[in-house]
Amino acid sequence: MLDLSLPLGLRDLTPDHSAHLAELSGRLEEVFRSFGYRRVLLPTLERLEVVERGLSEAALAGVLKFVEPGSGEVVAIRPDITPQIARLYAARKDALPAPARLCYDGPVLRAREARAGRPREVYQAGVELLGAGGASADSEALAVLRRALDRAGLTQAVLEVGHARFASAVLSAAGLSAKARAAAMEALSRKDEGALAALATGGRGEGRSRGALPALATLYGEGALSRAREVARAAPQAVAALAELESALRLARRKGVREVEVDLGEVRGLGYYTGLTFAGYAPGAGSAVASGGRYDGLLARFGRPGPAIGFAVDLEYATQALEHASGRRAAAGRARR
Amino acid sequence: MLDLSLPLGLRDLTPDHSAHLAELSGRLEEVFRSFGYRRVLLPTLERLEVVERGLSEAALAGVLKFVEPGSGEVVAIRPDITPQIARLYAARKDALPAPARLCYDGPVLRAREARAGRPREVYQAGVELLGAGGASADSEALAVLRRALDRAGLTQAVLEVGHARFASAVLSAAGLSAKARAAAMEALSRKDEGALAALATGGRGEGRSRGALPALATLYGEGALSRAREVARAAPQAVAALAELESALRLARRKGVREVEVDLGEVRGLGYYTGLTFAGYAPGAGSAVASGGRYDGLLARFGRPGPAIGFAVDLEYATQALEHASGRRAAAGRARR
Repeated sequence: MLDLSLPLGLRDLTPDHSAHLAELSGRLEEVFRSFGYRRVLLPTLERLEVVERGLSEAALAGVLKFVEPGSGEVVAIRPDITPQIARLYAARKDALPAPARLCYDGPVLRAREARAGRPREVYQAGVELLGAGGASADSEALAVLRRALDRAGLTQAVLEVGHARFASAVLSAAGLSAKARAAAMEALSRKDEGALAALATGGRGEGRSRGALPALATLYGEGALSRAREVARAAPQAVAALAELESALRLARRKGVREVEVDLGEVRGLGYYTGLTFAGYAPGAGSAVASGGRYDGLLARFGRPGPAIGFAVDLEYATQALEHASGRRAAAGRARR
Repeated sequence: MLDLSLPLGLRDLTPDHSAHLAELSGRLEEVFRSFGYRRVLLPTLERLEVVERGLSEAALAGVLKFVEPGSGEVVAIRPDITPQIARLYAARKDALPAPARLCYDGPVLRAREARAGRPREVYQAGVELLGAGGASADSEALAVLRRALDRAGLTQAVLEVGHARFASAVLSAAGLSAKARAAAMEALSRKDEGALAALATGGRGEGRSRGALPALATLYGEGALSRAREVARAAPQAVAALAELESALRLARRKGVREVEVDLGEVRGLGYYTGLTFAGYAPGAGSAVASGGRYDGLLARFGRPGPAIGFAVDLEYATQALEHASGRRAAAGRARR
């Protein structure tokens, strides 16, 4: 008797759920196109060297790689589409003048579940704005995401924005040891003000900088921006990061982006991000329905330096949220194997 | 300097071409849904054992397989979606009562190009009608394909139909040696009547059966069916095959299927097909824009016996034909790397 199981950690998506994903995907594509983003189809495999260039060491641990029998090349199943787009943008300067607006839709695969209960294979649809920096590009990314979530039916989704350099600037100014810095990041992820205060006492930074550390755990919700302005006084680089965030938010509001919340205490899982970061949250989804940010360092690694920003919608989490919203969840017949 | 090339034989599809593929894919999905086919999303990887069960030995040579580092399982990147659907249908009897109408859309990947100039990674959209046999199901498959091609804009496409058991029945009746049979199949693929006549003389079959062999090379175009009726007299099993084909065609015409041509001399590359076979051809495409057939033996290999029929549209060849038709081909910016 043949064993009909799938490779460990992989799943089939059965009819209703798959149809919901396909419908969502079509709506997102419509919005992306309306903003001038053009679809590209990129291969399932990349040479490992290219994937390594695009990802952090932590992310690389999750890459599924093997030697191709025919060519002997070491290849990887793509774990992320953004580095593929960076590779394409660098390789095809003629066809893709800056700024380039590209979008995609497809699965990415990891060697194993990143966290228990998270799928190994993830269906994403996203956009990348390449060769464009500043508040105008940042606010465009937020506007595209807002419109995409609204068009998908997730009008109640909240956009949470932050900045990849804010908390790290404050941590650096406090002058913590490497070990204490790691502990502080851990405390920050738990929003543990007390632990941060205890760690701050051991820093080598100025008193004002060390004193600002605990407040990092409070930079979300009502009044977050004014508290952040206080904290930023302790770290000049945090001032610049905050100014970037505020400009982007101002322009985004003018473009009609609503339901925005700030969280400047995020330091983990930022990968290649260098500036504005953002994620979309909606009730009923197991995790963020979308996430993205500015990555001004990535394109240079592929030989065509320039600023860039983008995001990906997680089609499954977004579909979960939609099914939740319309009360269809129970009937969705989603297969997890 | 980083080498930005892709793994051997893989390509990026650049913006205009990708957009055309996506548009085509949306139109096909619409038609599939209108006939009651429900979308499924299946994983990129399968256990090799499952893939082996679904493919012929020739097809297995082109499967890209490797050992997963985490689990030690031998897995394959799917080279074909039909065996995946057969696996799903067998594994989920409760959720998928017969007859089940399923459709899909996604890439499949081979270890190397099957023929020079053919892509290793192929984007397909297709349907499978599982647990349904006979002329009714056969003609439904033809009707769905005709409607799909029309909706895509390929109204000028021709459907070529054949039968997986016809030519092989005639070859068997002629009683050729294994070596002569292989040579006859080769001659048949070139439509070489003379070579077939020469080979027929050495057969151990009845004179009438051997005499029918050369005409196999003539079973296409105007009058193909009446010539086939003559040929079938030499081989009882060919009579049954021809009757199946004619019933399917009769019903299909009643369902409005037009532009059908017959070719009963096809013997190569039939893989798991056991009955009606068909392909769509359109000017400007490098190969068939769609192909499919009846595979009544495949489901049993996965433990849920039953008849089945399906087809896949090759999204790239179909897009080529569309670009050709609208004269956009030169502007399509198709990247082959």
